[in-house]
Amino acid sequence: MNTTLEEQVAVIGRQARAAGMALALVDTDAKNRALHAIAHAIIAATDAIVAANQQDVAAGEKSGLSKALLDRLTLTPERVKAMAEGVQEIAHLADPTGEIMREWTRPNGLKIKQVRVPLGVIGIIYESRPNVTAEAGALCLKSGNAAILRGGSEAVNSNRLLVDIISKALASAGLPAEAIQFLPPGDRRSITALGQLSGLVDLIIARGSEEMIKSVRANASVPVLGHGKGVCHVYIDKFADMDKAVKIAVNAKVQRPGVCNAMETLIIHEYMMWDMLPKLAGEYLRAGVEMRGDDRVRGLVAQAKEATDEDWDTEYHDLILSIKIVDTIQEAIEHINRHGSGHTESIITEDKKNADMFQKAIDSSCVMVNASTRLHDGSVFGFGSEIGISTQKLHARGTMGLRELTTTKYLVEGTGQIRE
Amino acid sequence: MNTTLEEQVAVIGRQARAAGMALALVDTDAKNRALHAIAHAIIAATDAIVAANQQDVAAGEKSGLSKALLDRLTLTPERVKAMAEGVQEIAHLADPTGEIMREWTRPNGLKIKQVRVPLGVIGIIYESRPNVTAEAGALCLKSGNAAILRGGSEAVNSNRLLVDIISKALASAGLPAEAIQFLPPGDRRSITALGQLSGLVDLIIARGSEEMIKSVRANASVPVLGHGKGVCHVYIDKFADMDKAVKIAVNAKVQRPGVCNAMETLIIHEYMMWDMLPKLAGEYLRAGVEMRGDDRVRGLVAQAKEATDEDWDTEYHDLILSIKIVDTIQEAIEHINRHGSGHTESIITEDKKNADMFQKAIDSSCVMVNASTRLHDGSVFGFGSEIGISTQKLHARGTMGLRELTTTKYLVEGTGQIRE
Repeated sequence: MNTTLEEQVAVIGRQARAAGMALALVDTDAKNRALHAIAHAIIAATDAIVAANQQDVAAGEKSGLSKALLDRLTLTPERVKAMAEGVQEIAHLADPTGEIMREWTRPNGLKIKQVRVPLGVIGIIYESRPNVTAEAGALCLKSGNAAILRGGSEAVNSNRLLVDIISKALASAGLPAEAIQFLPPGDRRSITALGQLSGLVDLIIARGSEEMIKSVRANASVPVLGHGKGVCHVYIDKFADMDKAVKIAVNAKVQRPGVCNAMETLIIHEYMMWDMLPKLAGEYLRAGVEMRGDDRVRGLVAQAKEATDEDWDTEYHDLILSIKIVDTIQEAIEHINRHGSGHTESIITEDKKNADMFQKAIDSSCVMVNASTRLHDGSVFGFGSEIGISTQKLHARGTMGLRELTTTKYLVEGTGQIRE
Repeated sequence: MNTTLEEQVAVIGRQARAAGMALALVDTDAKNRALHAIAHAIIAATDAIVAANQQDVAAGEKSGLSKALLDRLTLTPERVKAMAEGVQEIAHLADPTGEIMREWTRPNGLKIKQVRVPLGVIGIIYESRPNVTAEAGALCLKSGNAAILRGGSEAVNSNRLLVDIISKALASAGLPAEAIQFLPPGDRRSITALGQLSGLVDLIIARGSEEMIKSVRANASVPVLGHGKGVCHVYIDKFADMDKAVKIAVNAKVQRPGVCNAMETLIIHEYMMWDMLPKLAGEYLRAGVEMRGDDRVRGLVAQAKEATDEDWDTEYHDLILSIKIVDTIQEAIEHINRHGSGHTESIITEDKKNADMFQKAIDSSCVMVNASTRLHDGSVFGFGSEIGISTQKLHARGTMGLRELTTTKYLVEGTGQIRE
């Protein structure tokens, strides 16, 4: 039989919708039993998973994937075990659904409750790492949502087998096998088709490059949550503690520069620059960080290159840092609100008033005092698992956990009340 | 000087952004003082407002606006007073910003808080009634947001004067005059330009016809919240109390048929149809309701027309009702989840298990037991004021009050913590 790609994707969407409706009625214990069944099935299939993964790795080597990407792609027995353990950990997280957010009774006797409920069907578009398949599927299941998983072509064999294992484990645990489904990669049109399934798919989460997220968003009528770009700042205030400032400014840049919550721009109050800059420059040079600064920075640090206008808006994802000197905290705040991406910023100060002002005035998903921007993270925050970090303001802002995979509904209990 | 429409709208957007940044730092008292100043200024300008409004009404009469629309458009001194009182009531509502949603300390000593903060800048696109200008502006102000108000052409003189009065009152109360701005109607391109101001405008709220909302959404990169279509259902269960059922099924259809939370489809369990249908039909006929039913309905009610497939998906906004008989509660749930718009549904039953099942399985923003769908409303719920009712699942679902005009941010307090 001949069906178009769009029809195939719509069939997946309808199956997922039906499975999601069923999942919404399932209690926490049943979902947890299914998560344990999935973990056991993954462990039992370790050899097959590693074998399928080797096909992907071999294809990746042939097509010239970088060493770093090949490493992210590779599954060893240990990594398979870690994947299964990750699924089990999600079984131990609190179930966000059913939570009563508020509850009150009106003068006419109406009892009103606002409760958390699953969104329904979530599409997840991601790249490279096959462990995302198990993790994202498990997070959707725990929050009562059906998932449509669309990994990258480079992991097609690993992902296809993993979804097959997960879906059989779901069925063995008495839940609908279609609650976690695989959308084959290789054709970008399937992403567009998925994005057009309003009424069947409630949310698409896109994890990957900024361009990928932009293209998903541009072609979708379904709402898209994208892991946001991170142009994160650390501001060393006039009243900063030197030791904290150095420790944090180094950690935020150097500990893992390729991630979204790493610092891209360091701002220093001019009062502190004389002591701070030479000390920090030494640390940065030792760590191999390329510095780009304004005139005053280059006056004190010979190795610093000139920062262009473009630098202030750039997420380097690398050991590169732009540095700016300001005369007031207001100037720092204005710079951040103009050039930041609304992700994570930190002020280093011992002055409570300046800390408060900074936290209030900065328009970002997370505003820190005396802490490294690298700490804005689901696991550091204690959420157990993270779907991504949102820099948008609607629905979810900042690190997204299970709770952000839910919506709410009002439940009203009456005794015959009508509108007068 | 020649500037394009897009440039003019962008200037308004930048002024609103700056004003919104300033508003975010203003405390509740200052916002309330400004709201009272606005109310007083409106009262003081009653004559001028009525005069400006008479220009709109005269133009409306000339262009052949319907009597109902002319009535909605008209401002009398009493209506101006009610408008000012509405603004004062918003001053008495709780300020949603600054609310701490959760707060915890991590093992590494990090103190984390999630707090409510203003969205920033909200664009509001609406039609006809000029009192929306004052109400929407006041709601945005109370929640710390700058507003760009784009009312319909038919109310241009009333709205322009109102925004002028409001903006002067803001300035007199020491707040930025640009916090509430007027976007002139008359050119649809200004709506498109507003929708493209990502980074300056955080949210657009569209209040009006379904087509208007669709067109705003299709042309916007800024997120759009639209007041949703309401195909609301009442289901009279096998275990319904007759008196409650009749009272609610009549109220939900008849009390005000032109609004979104009025019932469009009545579903009756076959066990109840013999007693219920003739009784209800009498009430509906007396109230002038046109009934459209399936075969069993027409077997019992001679006056009922045949319901087509289209009827089950139609929001009549009128004294028309589709009626369906089902053999099981499951059949009712499936019908509602297929044909409903996710707005408001109610089950009439004395059976707790059926009530629970219905509330769990129905995928709508508000699911009621033994109450009229007409009660899903911000004022009935006690929210004081309503921006609209959302049938989408992300960000806000159901009746939207002040809280839905906010976002959150994480505030983290450290003592030098870094990522290990």
